[in-house]
Amino acid sequence: MTEQLRPDGSLRHLLTLEGLTKPQVERLLERAQGMVRPLGARPAMSQALAGSTVANLFMEPSTRTRVSFELAAKRLGAHVVNLELQLSSRVKGESMLDTVYTLQSLHVDALVIRDAEAGVPQLVAANVAPHVSVLSAGEAHVSHPTQGLLDALTILQRKQRFDGLAVAIVGDIRHSRVARSAWHALHILGVTDLRVVAPAALMPEAREFPGVTRCTDLSAGIEGADVVMVLRIQKERMGQADLPDNARYFTAWGLTHERLKAARPDAIVMHPQPMNRGIEIAADVADGAQSVIRDQVRNGVAVRMAVLAQVLDARGETP
Amino acid sequence: MTEQLRPDGSLRHLLTLEGLTKPQVERLLERAQGMVRPLGARPAMSQALAGSTVANLFMEPSTRTRVSFELAAKRLGAHVVNLELQLSSRVKGESMLDTVYTLQSLHVDALVIRDAEAGVPQLVAANVAPHVSVLSAGEAHVSHPTQGLLDALTILQRKQRFDGLAVAIVGDIRHSRVARSAWHALHILGVTDLRVVAPAALMPEAREFPGVTRCTDLSAGIEGADVVMVLRIQKERMGQADLPDNARYFTAWGLTHERLKAARPDAIVMHPQPMNRGIEIAADVADGAQSVIRDQVRNGVAVRMAVLAQVLDARGETP
Amino acid sequence: MTEQLRPDGSLRHLLTLEGLTKPQVERLLERAQGMVRPLGARPAMSQALAGSTVANLFMEPSTRTRVSFELAAKRLGAHVVNLELQLSSRVKGESMLDTVYTLQSLHVDALVIRDAEAGVPQLVAANVAPHVSVLSAGEAHVSHPTQGLLDALTILQRKQRFDGLAVAIVGDIRHSRVARSAWHALHILGVTDLRVVAPAALMPEAREFPGVTRCTDLSAGIEGADVVMVLRIQKERMGQADLPDNARYFTAWGLTHERLKAARPDAIVMHPQPMNRGIEIAADVADGAQSVIRDQVRNGVAVRMAVLAQVLDARGETP
Repeated sequence: MTEQLRPDGSLRHLLTLEGLTKPQVERLLERAQGMVRPLGARPAMSQALAGSTVANLFMEPSTRTRVSFELAAKRLGAHVVNLELQLSSRVKGESMLDTVYTLQSLHVDALVIRDAEAGVPQLVAANVAPHVSVLSAGEAHVSHPTQGLLDALTILQRKQRFDGLAVAIVGDIRHSRVARSAWHALHILGVTDLRVVAPAALMPEAREFPGVTRCTDLSAGIEGADVVMVLRIQKERMGQADLPDNARYFTAWGLTHERLKAARPDAIVMHPQPMNRGIEIAADVADGAQSVIRDQVRNGVAVRMAVLAQVLDARGETP
Repeated sequence: MTEQLRPDGSLRHLLTLEGLTKPQVERLLERAQGMVRPLGARPAMSQALAGSTVANLFMEPSTRTRVSFELAAKRLGAHVVNLELQLSSRVKGESMLDTVYTLQSLHVDALVIRDAEAGVPQLVAANVAPHVSVLSAGEAHVSHPTQGLLDALTILQRKQRFDGLAVAIVGDIRHSRVARSAWHALHILGVTDLRVVAPAALMPEAREFPGVTRCTDLSAGIEGADVVMVLRIQKERMGQADLPDNARYFTAWGLTHERLKAARPDAIVMHPQPMNRGIEIAADVADGAQSVIRDQVRNGVAVRMAVLAQVLDARGETP
Repeated sequence: MTEQLRPDGSLRHLLTLEGLTKPQVERLLERAQGMVRPLGARPAMSQALAGSTVANLFMEPSTRTRVSFELAAKRLGAHVVNLELQLSSRVKGESMLDTVYTLQSLHVDALVIRDAEAGVPQLVAANVAPHVSVLSAGEAHVSHPTQGLLDALTILQRKQRFDGLAVAIVGDIRHSRVARSAWHALHILGVTDLRVVAPAALMPEAREFPGVTRCTDLSAGIEGADVVMVLRIQKERMGQADLPDNARYFTAWGLTHERLKAARPDAIVMHPQPMNRGIEIAADVADGAQSVIRDQVRNGVAVRMAVLAQVLDARGETP
């Protein structure tokens, strides 16, 4: 794995949560919490990154995540440029790196990279100049570290702790970077009752998610859970044979109010969005009293501000 | 119709001009006039919206209107993000609302929405959080309220009054949101001699535009007019059968210098752009001494600044 | 040629370097040099253009050049809007001008224009209002003036002079605006030993590049050169019949370390990017000790800042 830390131990890149220490994750969550404002209030804002430049380099379309990073950077006073690249696979690696070298020569300080294929954020991080930080905004099915952090922050806000919690991640685990980053975050933060709940076809490989409980029955899987994290069916990452039928999937696996009763009465319901309402989640659950889905979005911009400030503002500062 | 006003009577959304009072429209025009600067001078600029965020959510391409809103927001000190969404009809309503919920959770204060289908701005306005304002930047053939305001402002600048004016709207009235919003504005402001002039196929339904004079002869329709507002042929909103032949349309309906002589000698010529030169308007009329088309554009950014300032800056202020 | 200077002799537009005087070019290079910062340092930044608006109007995709201009404008405090237009040839001229008239009425101060066809920047410059400046960001195979300036600045930084230098431009000269603008810059600045080195099929017309040495042998062409400027194979501007085979081109014309030995030992290697590694240049030469390709990029943003500041900031100032 590419080294994410500077020699002094401070965070330089954020490519994955894997390998971060509990204090490092806690520090990011604490900093993010300081950026959270209630809906309707002015967002947190500063000039901490005035004079810095952030480039959003998206090779997979994602308007919402791009806007979240864009606003995080602008609200810290940075300049932001957006690039959407469609590179053919044949020339991708080298064209990508030449684009990155161009951006670093233009005094870009942070590269926010999203790609449907695995490995690109690492490749870039391993090759950029020392003054540049790389932040993954979603890498294939592998990693989505700011999503993992915002999920952890959302849980912490509602449950005030991680130890002793039962967290069930439900649905298309196999193709989900969200599940992988949530698992990293929660594992680091001390959640011991972590369950992956999915039909057999959407279960991850046996070697993945060590230490979690695997369950192929929805009701059993969310029994007594404090947190039910529903995943998006990632049709774009499935082969034709694996594609579930929408109506049948909802019948067997869609999270309804009825099914949610198996969880604790104060369980919170999460979803990384965009949602397929009526497929993996019933619309009235998504919009219901136990849903914290909009909190997740609000926390997302706070987490991205915290991460940007941590890697850029703190250049030369110890962590 | 969705309520556009806050309980205290101040303007919260701008989806249509229909139903606004004369003082409300006059207040917006007055505020916009204060933002107008001569061509070549520095544009009006302030930090009135510093800390606010405006999202341009365009589901129909329109570079010029997007840039006009974008500059209006930036020149008031707001942060701006641009989103271009292409949503399939099947999932449009719910995907749209989930995107809107995301934006409001990212502390976006104003959503500028353009859509080729009717109803979306209303749907969004009826569902957003109380701190968010929705501004229509063009809704199907239904409404384009900032265009109606900029048209009214342009007329006021040149004619110094609305009462006693003869205004002819010429061309593809049936498919035109510009015509509908101009009619709303001018009707509210007291123009009584308002004419819609079009070939029968492009006339609106009988129940629409109550109180106007309908005329299917161009020369008769603009006879003695103070204002001739030429519309774009909206081929993208016509069925195959309705498509006029360009050359024949110009021969019968194109506004030429010769034809313009039927209007008053000091009549002004308007067009909402983009123009089909040589189809609905002769190039030398578009660029001629009676044309105020570029004034319309300049007034457009002033109107959008006024509207943004009115709905955002004045949160908590009475109108 | 469209006049680029104001009546007082100051630079208003930058469409081509052709016809500029040596002091004019030197002034731009000097101003650009003042904007250069080492990689990893904060970029130069000011509020010199606060209140100004720059529009990037790109009719040919070019993410890197657009970002370079965008950051140059933002780092001078200007507002920036990006427009990507795909206009069909039939309506291009007039639609283009109507878009330009719209932008000038929105108080845009500088239009940065890139187009795959020749003539558009001139057409625009000849028609815009007096307060608007037009900057070419690349015009067909004809001209790319900021590239010519950044190439000259890069040479000056490394060689501290222009007189007495031997400069070889190598490769697809025929289709290259970079070659044409480099030639203009270097000719004005006094380089007398200027060589165009290309296979016969990629040589420019005989009337072009007067005064240069033409050479169809790579080793002979770069013999004793201080500067080897390698060009991109412009496949997008070639007919099917002219397309070279990649491997054969590299064998005959690719710049390798072995071949580079024919140049002076302290020769610098330049490339305008994007590179076709393994076609016109070997990867290890592109990334090697003699390569100044990343300096070119860094100098690009400095040159664009200098040009924007020169045409906008200096309105009313003598040159």
